[in-house]
Amino acid sequence: MTSSPKTPSAIQPVSLIGGGPGAWDLITVRGMKRLQEADVILADHLGPTAELEKLCDVSTKTVVDVSKLPYGKQVTQERTNEMLVEYARQGLKVVRLKGGDPYVFGRGFEELEYLSSNGIECEVIPGVTSAVSVPAVAGIPITNRGVVHSFTVVSGHLPPGHPKSLVDWSALAKSGGTLSIIMGVKNAGLIAQALIDGGLAADTPAAVIQEGTTDAQRSLRCTLGSLREEMITQGIKPPAVYVIGQVAGL
Amino acid sequence: MTSSPKTPSAIQPVSLIGGGPGAWDLITVRGMKRLQEADVILADHLGPTAELEKLCDVSTKTVVDVSKLPYGKQVTQERTNEMLVEYARQGLKVVRLKGGDPYVFGRGFEELEYLSSNGIECEVIPGVTSAVSVPAVAGIPITNRGVVHSFTVVSGHLPPGHPKSLVDWSALAKSGGTLSIIMGVKNAGLIAQALIDGGLAADTPAAVIQEGTTDAQRSLRCTLGSLREEMITQGIKPPAVYVIGQVAGL
Repeated sequence: MTSSPKTPSAIQPVSLIGGGPGAWDLITVRGMKRLQEADVILADHLGPTAELEKLCDVSTKTVVDVSKLPYGKQVTQERTNEMLVEYARQGLKVVRLKGGDPYVFGRGFEELEYLSSNGIECEVIPGVTSAVSVPAVAGIPITNRGVVHSFTVVSGHLPPGHPKSLVDWSALAKSGGTLSIIMGVKNAGLIAQALIDGGLAADTPAAVIQEGTTDAQRSLRCTLGSLREEMITQGIKPPAVYVIGQVAGL
Repeated sequence: MTSSPKTPSAIQPVSLIGGGPGAWDLITVRGMKRLQEADVILADHLGPTAELEKLCDVSTKTVVDVSKLPYGKQVTQERTNEMLVEYARQGLKVVRLKGGDPYVFGRGFEELEYLSSNGIECEVIPGVTSAVSVPAVAGIPITNRGVVHSFTVVSGHLPPGHPKSLVDWSALAKSGGTLSIIMGVKNAGLIAQALIDGGLAADTPAAVIQEGTTDAQRSLRCTLGSLREEMITQGIKPPAVYVIGQVAGL
């Protein structure tokens, strides 16, 4: 870490890796290889971070926690961006390890743009997204022939009607496809109501999966109409995915 | 292969594996491990099948091609289902290797149900879906903060208005999210028109990526209005993904 800044030609591309939904072995083979090659790993609390030692020899690496926990300890996105550049300019092999896929609400593109604007190349390694894989391990296929021909993945971070929300929940209620909502625990009640107001039947099957693919995984089945109440009753906490649609009843 | 049928207790669970978008090392670590343990692999032509020898020692395994090529040589789904059961009942470790994710239009749930109805357990190992990862490797983030808060993955296998279609293309045109369409090369013109008729602007950015993540990858950028013409001009063939939305212009 004490080496002097390198010339641009000595700077290695930063690898932006999707770590998958949580279980350590649901990262890709390419992602694991980059972790093994890394000098520095900037990691979220999601993905395989808790079991990183199963993927690489962490004793030879600098592992930096850049979690953005809701309402908790924060490393700002700006500081994460800066650290990526700082470590890369030392000539170190830098990996940015993210939960799920880097481009599914992961702010991966912002990190790539920041690196690019600083003249540093960035390799993106896709990951298994929680929106599809977490329902799967709980027994729910996101699509099923003859039942559904599309699915929509939505960030539930902003409530329906929020001035910055870009989601037309009424249109999604009419899409005919499965809905998989991530980062939506807090707003579950408002989201369910917006979908019902948009015409989706309150008895549409739903399922909620907390900490999917990890040892702590738990899930519940309910309906769109009872989603919020069941989540409160069962004490569901982030990270959780909820699925709304006929497939949740299979 | 000549061993006699085993007692139920000797039957091992069948592993249904998502092989990822095409590049051999975009399968998960867990998926690779199961391939290495397998006696029999039933594989599609998608996913990492062409480079299977990089993931496991194929000389010790029976590899069966169960591709369902459009308009080409066909192994029916029914025959694939039967083979899974037949091999499993011989006490062999059977892997069903699929492109992308098993549950994203992969008929994975049908295979699980068939195995289950025959008393055979099935383990599902999620994969990196082409719908997200293929745009990513072509430089397109399926979401980007401040631009889009949702994305919809649609099978373009059936044209809009087909009696068996379960997609409300007009609602999807209004969703506000990115659209990622797979298996939709043939119907691209009808799909683009249905989206325009539904209110999506003809100048909405679009991108097409053929054989994404493989050495044969090629891509083009266009607009929703010019999608079909550009695909014909450039001779785009399956497998291809097309993305429609502001992110395709980034």
